[in-house]
Amino acid sequence: MILIKGGTVIGPTGAIPAEVLVVGEQVSAVFAPGQGPQEGDFETLDATGKYVIPGGVDAHTHMELPFGGTFASDTFDTGTRAAAWGGTTTIIDFAVQRTGEVVQDGLAAWHGKADGNCHIDYAFHMILGGVDDESLKAMDTLVADEGITSFKLFMAYPGVFYSDDGQILRAMQKARDNGAMIMMHAENGPAIDVLVKQALERGETDPIHHGLTRPEALEAEATSRAIWLAGVAADCPLYIVHLSASKALEQVAAARDLGRNVFAETCPQYLYLTLEDQLGAPGFEGAKWVCSTPLRSKHETHRADLWRGLRSNDLSVVSTDHCPFCFKDQKELGIGDFSKIPNGIGSVEHRVDLLYQGVVDGKLSLARWVETIATTPARMFGLYPRKGIIAPGSDADIVLYDPAARTRISVENHHMNMDHSAWEGYEIAGKVDTVMSRGRVIVKDGAYHGAKGHGQFVRRGLSDYLL
Amino acid sequence: MILIKGGTVIGPTGAIPAEVLVVGEQVSAVFAPGQGPQEGDFETLDATGKYVIPGGVDAHTHMELPFGGTFASDTFDTGTRAAAWGGTTTIIDFAVQRTGEVVQDGLAAWHGKADGNCHIDYAFHMILGGVDDESLKAMDTLVADEGITSFKLFMAYPGVFYSDDGQILRAMQKARDNGAMIMMHAENGPAIDVLVKQALERGETDPIHHGLTRPEALEAEATSRAIWLAGVAADCPLYIVHLSASKALEQVAAARDLGRNVFAETCPQYLYLTLEDQLGAPGFEGAKWVCSTPLRSKHETHRADLWRGLRSNDLSVVSTDHCPFCFKDQKELGIGDFSKIPNGIGSVEHRVDLLYQGVVDGKLSLARWVETIATTPARMFGLYPRKGIIAPGSDADIVLYDPAARTRISVENHHMNMDHSAWEGYEIAGKVDTVMSRGRVIVKDGAYHGAKGHGQFVRRGLSDYLL
Amino acid sequence: MILIKGGTVIGPTGAIPAEVLVVGEQVSAVFAPGQGPQEGDFETLDATGKYVIPGGVDAHTHMELPFGGTFASDTFDTGTRAAAWGGTTTIIDFAVQRTGEVVQDGLAAWHGKADGNCHIDYAFHMILGGVDDESLKAMDTLVADEGITSFKLFMAYPGVFYSDDGQILRAMQKARDNGAMIMMHAENGPAIDVLVKQALERGETDPIHHGLTRPEALEAEATSRAIWLAGVAADCPLYIVHLSASKALEQVAAARDLGRNVFAETCPQYLYLTLEDQLGAPGFEGAKWVCSTPLRSKHETHRADLWRGLRSNDLSVVSTDHCPFCFKDQKELGIGDFSKIPNGIGSVEHRVDLLYQGVVDGKLSLARWVETIATTPARMFGLYPRKGIIAPGSDADIVLYDPAARTRISVENHHMNMDHSAWEGYEIAGKVDTVMSRGRVIVKDGAYHGAKGHGQFVRRGLSDYLL
Amino acid sequence: MILIKGGTVIGPTGAIPAEVLVVGEQVSAVFAPGQGPQEGDFETLDATGKYVIPGGVDAHTHMELPFGGTFASDTFDTGTRAAAWGGTTTIIDFAVQRTGEVVQDGLAAWHGKADGNCHIDYAFHMILGGVDDESLKAMDTLVADEGITSFKLFMAYPGVFYSDDGQILRAMQKARDNGAMIMMHAENGPAIDVLVKQALERGETDPIHHGLTRPEALEAEATSRAIWLAGVAADCPLYIVHLSASKALEQVAAARDLGRNVFAETCPQYLYLTLEDQLGAPGFEGAKWVCSTPLRSKHETHRADLWRGLRSNDLSVVSTDHCPFCFKDQKELGIGDFSKIPNGIGSVEHRVDLLYQGVVDGKLSLARWVETIATTPARMFGLYPRKGIIAPGSDADIVLYDPAARTRISVENHHMNMDHSAWEGYEIAGKVDTVMSRGRVIVKDGAYHGAKGHGQFVRRGLSDYLL
Repeated sequence: MILIKGGTVIGPTGAIPAEVLVVGEQVSAVFAPGQGPQEGDFETLDATGKYVIPGGVDAHTHMELPFGGTFASDTFDTGTRAAAWGGTTTIIDFAVQRTGEVVQDGLAAWHGKADGNCHIDYAFHMILGGVDDESLKAMDTLVADEGITSFKLFMAYPGVFYSDDGQILRAMQKARDNGAMIMMHAENGPAIDVLVKQALERGETDPIHHGLTRPEALEAEATSRAIWLAGVAADCPLYIVHLSASKALEQVAAARDLGRNVFAETCPQYLYLTLEDQLGAPGFEGAKWVCSTPLRSKHETHRADLWRGLRSNDLSVVSTDHCPFCFKDQKELGIGDFSKIPNGIGSVEHRVDLLYQGVVDGKLSLARWVETIATTPARMFGLYPRKGIIAPGSDADIVLYDPAARTRISVENHHMNMDHSAWEGYEIAGKVDTVMSRGRVIVKDGAYHGAKGHGQFVRRGLSDYLL
Repeated sequence: MILIKGGTVIGPTGAIPAEVLVVGEQVSAVFAPGQGPQEGDFETLDATGKYVIPGGVDAHTHMELPFGGTFASDTFDTGTRAAAWGGTTTIIDFAVQRTGEVVQDGLAAWHGKADGNCHIDYAFHMILGGVDDESLKAMDTLVADEGITSFKLFMAYPGVFYSDDGQILRAMQKARDNGAMIMMHAENGPAIDVLVKQALERGETDPIHHGLTRPEALEAEATSRAIWLAGVAADCPLYIVHLSASKALEQVAAARDLGRNVFAETCPQYLYLTLEDQLGAPGFEGAKWVCSTPLRSKHETHRADLWRGLRSNDLSVVSTDHCPFCFKDQKELGIGDFSKIPNGIGSVEHRVDLLYQGVVDGKLSLARWVETIATTPARMFGLYPRKGIIAPGSDADIVLYDPAARTRISVENHHMNMDHSAWEGYEIAGKVDTVMSRGRVIVKDGAYHGAKGHGQFVRRGLSDYLL
Repeated sequence: MILIKGGTVIGPTGAIPAEVLVVGEQVSAVFAPGQGPQEGDFETLDATGKYVIPGGVDAHTHMELPFGGTFASDTFDTGTRAAAWGGTTTIIDFAVQRTGEVVQDGLAAWHGKADGNCHIDYAFHMILGGVDDESLKAMDTLVADEGITSFKLFMAYPGVFYSDDGQILRAMQKARDNGAMIMMHAENGPAIDVLVKQALERGETDPIHHGLTRPEALEAEATSRAIWLAGVAADCPLYIVHLSASKALEQVAAARDLGRNVFAETCPQYLYLTLEDQLGAPGFEGAKWVCSTPLRSKHETHRADLWRGLRSNDLSVVSTDHCPFCFKDQKELGIGDFSKIPNGIGSVEHRVDLLYQGVVDGKLSLARWVETIATTPARMFGLYPRKGIIAPGSDADIVLYDPAARTRISVENHHMNMDHSAWEGYEIAGKVDTVMSRGRVIVKDGAYHGAKGHGQFVRRGLSDYLL
Repeated sequence: MILIKGGTVIGPTGAIPAEVLVVGEQVSAVFAPGQGPQEGDFETLDATGKYVIPGGVDAHTHMELPFGGTFASDTFDTGTRAAAWGGTTTIIDFAVQRTGEVVQDGLAAWHGKADGNCHIDYAFHMILGGVDDESLKAMDTLVADEGITSFKLFMAYPGVFYSDDGQILRAMQKARDNGAMIMMHAENGPAIDVLVKQALERGETDPIHHGLTRPEALEAEATSRAIWLAGVAADCPLYIVHLSASKALEQVAAARDLGRNVFAETCPQYLYLTLEDQLGAPGFEGAKWVCSTPLRSKHETHRADLWRGLRSNDLSVVSTDHCPFCFKDQKELGIGDFSKIPNGIGSVEHRVDLLYQGVVDGKLSLARWVETIATTPARMFGLYPRKGIIAPGSDADIVLYDPAARTRISVENHHMNMDHSAWEGYEIAGKVDTVMSRGRVIVKDGAYHGAKGHGQFVRRGLSDYLL
């Protein structure tokens, strides 16, 4: 038994001073100050001056993802450990069915990678690399039997993960029937590929051309198209991943005004980083920030619009799309050809901090911070109330957050398996002080007390946001 | 001490089985099932099979309002007692400054009406009947010293409550400075008055003409105008009251897409009742449903759009605009001239039930039900976390709601001081079973245990929704 | 020399009483009444009580089009003769490059079909069935040397005419460079094909299922996508063909509000006919009205919205998409499988009359009638001022239209090579009285005086609407 | 008889080489080149290398307008003479009913000012300074008997011209019945007056504060409100005058997308001049550019959006709102108090040139130039085909425009009665070469040949744009 005393508990609707009693792996009770157990067989965690928040839920990570001839550099071991350091206590990673592969085989492979290796709890979405009769049937099975209730499709990457509009429609119809969520990488791949080829032919090979060949219009178009197709599938639940651009946000907002089952996430990189300042860094440096969707221009209003979207709930979730690659040997695969740079940025350790900075900057309320990083992702993907909230009966995934401390992000001190940081030098107000995963204190006083294998696979239910 | 056991606690983000311990007037703790106190000096309330929800917060009532030469028929005594019966444990009523009157005098008068007479807790908004230098100064005073943090203006009723656009702008600028919320009755009064006069000249005197002379366009226009003016006042917080029409909702949704400080409520009557079926009832019967904004046509999509708006959060709150008048002698003032019918419908007793019907009908989730009737009004108007949530330290305003029972609404059994019901014959799935106000059980087993004077005035802080 | 006297000349901006002098094949002069030549060597055409309008320009016909194993039933001979009877003096037909074919070969084939067979002047758009390096080069050639300045692509019909988004983008970039217009069949073919297959598997084989499997959303989506792609191609000129649905119109209107180079046509069938009344006719009868885009539901607002779009100029042109098939042996190919019914309706003879009915019905002004059927299509496709206007120097393509007469459409009296009429029994106010093509009177007093071979190929310039 | 030979006649749909024969005051005929009369009793005007365009129609001028204790400095004599120099051959000025005055008396007064003093033809709109039963009746009389078919109302200037929304609605209902056009000065006067008072209280007295106290939002709001009110009046024809701002344009565009009878004009000053560069000129210099609506910020997209609106036809007309005041003694009335500066800019002489510059800059086509400065204003206000077009039977109001010459605007060479020019130093490609008014050459070879009294009052019919 652990009693967390003296802190301010932040939930998705506001803050209260309260004491939290943890018994075993769950929260047993929440008390008004002074009304918790006074004595007995329990430890006390002093949270004075701290925010007590539900552990973060990162709904979009890619540990060990095979991509472009290499693998994302974080294993489930290193990645979940880094997540824990950063106050995230649940990840939802993506199992992959490659084209031609049996869906269940892909899922089994990912279970194999994760099982016994995770420091925090984890769940899976399923990437469908090939929608056909067999994989459609597998969708039912995964929802009913495997606790996998969300499926990601790609409108980009022809020849790799790409689904055509007929395949997308079929998967959406299936999801409409079994209650699953369709997650969409919304970029018009066939058009982007033309622009990429033309750029390379013109000798435009630097990392910035990764961004310039993926214009906002082609993200907005695909977002719009996904929404239209979901409408044809009787308003199939649709979740747009890594939304990066103002006009894509407009599509989502318009659908939500109509009460549609349309949701979207953004990622910290789109809230802070830009095409010019990062992707356009001199020489090949910009490769560190090659990700898709790409960073957008600072001369446009994307970042302000995305913060606003978080406030208006047109963006419901902040995930990382954590997909780390080292600079050496990995990012370097694309020297002389930006299209060969592995796509991805590593942020799983920094999401909670980077969003807290939004609170400090007056862009989000404390309640909305907790909602976007923990409560809503849990509700969105069928993990609530087990995850995403500090409430009696919930898993004791709890973070003590110190608003008076500061975080300086650097490759020097981060725990992700990367030889650089996309956030090098960022100074953030606030700091993850203590992290508890299912009742076990895994980060405290700057030391790590967790262990590989502590994290368990969590079967998910359907989304709470559907009627 | 009371322990509420066996129930399902519904909060604004979801449901958990839990036990709630009430000590004195507050919630002391919330426990996982079986983990509350097992024995000791407390009563137990058995909530098995019940939903345990925070008491309703009705942010828009008009007890004893003087209107059209008569007074709303519920006193603070009868009205708050009826509210209690219906699961509402806090009301925010409107104190009135009439044109030419000192604001503080109006407030004092309303304190005089309410003090010692209420069965449940209450707070006040302030109606400004005349914006001038003096009343602008009074706004600061009320926010700083009186716990009054919201001010209502009227774009309708020229010569009564009407403010012109210059006055509105000045009040908004003041609210922008002191953090208050401007509440707006958004109908274009000068244009409506022309239509009313023309209708009467044509001999169109029946109650339905009340609705026909207040077309949707004149609500949408005024809503749009209020939003523009709030923008000129540096995005002054704006809350549109009793929104009734699709095109008015569109204005609010567009502003919210832009991240603006714009909010709106609707009322049960707009979700269920119509121009044709109620306001157009034969003879003078329709007078029962004369209210402003008016009921809208069933041949248009208003009701579906408003339910959708509740889901999308473009409508954040459901209030009643409770303003009851008896048919005899009161509504009858308008026989032969619809413009003389006192405006108002009485629903303070039925809001919780009528919205629960939306859950049964698949239009709202349980969590969203609680959010719209309790949590959001409390957060919107500076009452959270004291009201609107079941959490340690909150006032023990708690309702046990029985989803297996049914409610039949009738003048025969309601508790409002009205000689008819606007909802006569409505059968609702679900029923308010037990009501607790600040720790005192006031409704239980079909009997009333509350008392006049139990209810206290609550000073409010600023809205939680502003940054 | 012919002097047309006594009539009211209708131009795209209004009506004037005037006399028109034709010398040879051109208009020589236009005179105020009574100021034309009084005597001399000329015939007089008495236009008293008649409207004198420029001959119609039908910008979308498909004579002899191979489709679904058969050919459109009108040859250039029969089709242009029927057009002449109906007051249309210029058609722009579509030459076809099939996939794998050399563009210029396709053009040559169509010249072969038309040359020497037409009764009125004609021009060609080019259908690109396969966008690749060679056909992109051919686009330049056709614009520069062949008087072909518009190219049609298909987002529908995978495996037949379908271009993917990468191909579309490349063609648009080329058009942006050489000034050509991209014409788009905007329906999401891959998604439609899924719906068609599913319907057939459910045994839904009747003609109405042609419409039900091509929902509005999939036309709106494709329209939207084409507009986004044209934006990526630096605002390439884009012309949406046969727009049929409200939500597709919304996409066009939004683009035009932004000043984009986006244009659209609709067709008479979408202005008058419906899914239920025609396509849903009992038995296989509905096959007569199988065309793509399909007829839309009468329970929605499509027809009213399209008339409104003609008024607002969001729809700039009315063409026929004339693609006639006989019921016997042709439409009948689809008995038992709606997807095998050849797509097309024959209206080339009736467009001028059907739109004049809009004038009678108060939906269009006289000036707008002339603008939509003659002036704008001529300006849109580089035929102005040779066609589309009665002005000195223009071709003397002139129609005397009798507003006092009536037209009754029937297979009994039409001149198209069809064994039925899609418009059987339509009674129209107004009637084509006299038709002149390049100075030759070809229809007069109910008799035909034209001849095969009189019509000449017209090279077109670039659109007048681009800057 | 005059034959204009060798030129290119520009009409609203395009250009043709043609000869124009003028007999008496009208155009007698238009001939293909070489086909006009070869010999006989006529003069020839050589238009070689020139554009032959219909004389400009300026639909918004204020000669001798009383304003702020002074009068607009151009009389009908000086103002129409300056217009003639600039290629404008018709003005529509505003007769004024002041509050409390009989409408017909106001009209008579304006006839008195204009009669016998004009150099070019003129017509009147009527300003209604006080909508009441009597003035509503007068509207019918003016439409039926006086050739006055448009009425201007003000949402600005409380206490001067201001109408409240009830008055506006009544006037709109009347216009809906009798076919007249309501013209609207769309700015929220009561709100603006608050901002003006506050600015002056803060000591912000310079001319730029005229603009800063009339923010875009208050023009957009009023534009929106006028459109809503016109909708309540059964889609009464509505014409927004001097539209200056992007968001106001959005309101108009949205209404036009819906096929509404909504139209708008802009003025040259909004297309070229800005808040910062002109209104913010050092010292009191900015007073030259004080007009309402005000010049807008160059840091926003107003100018580009207005040019785009001209292209999309959401802006149908360019007028000048010519309302000249001298700097000395007139503009100077506002030294130390911007609110006392007479509102107005003088441009009646430069409109044709300033818009031609848009052609040179690639923003308008030649046809659209003629349409916006001549044809559409004539059609909009019931002057077509007498004015606005070169066609047989039309008044011979013709301008020969020399695209090869240049115009340098300066107080040194202008003809308006002003001691400064708002356009001082502007160099324009193109020049008015020759001007003919009703068959009389009044400007030629840099000399003036017109005369006071040549201009006649023209009774107008209803707008051509209504159905």
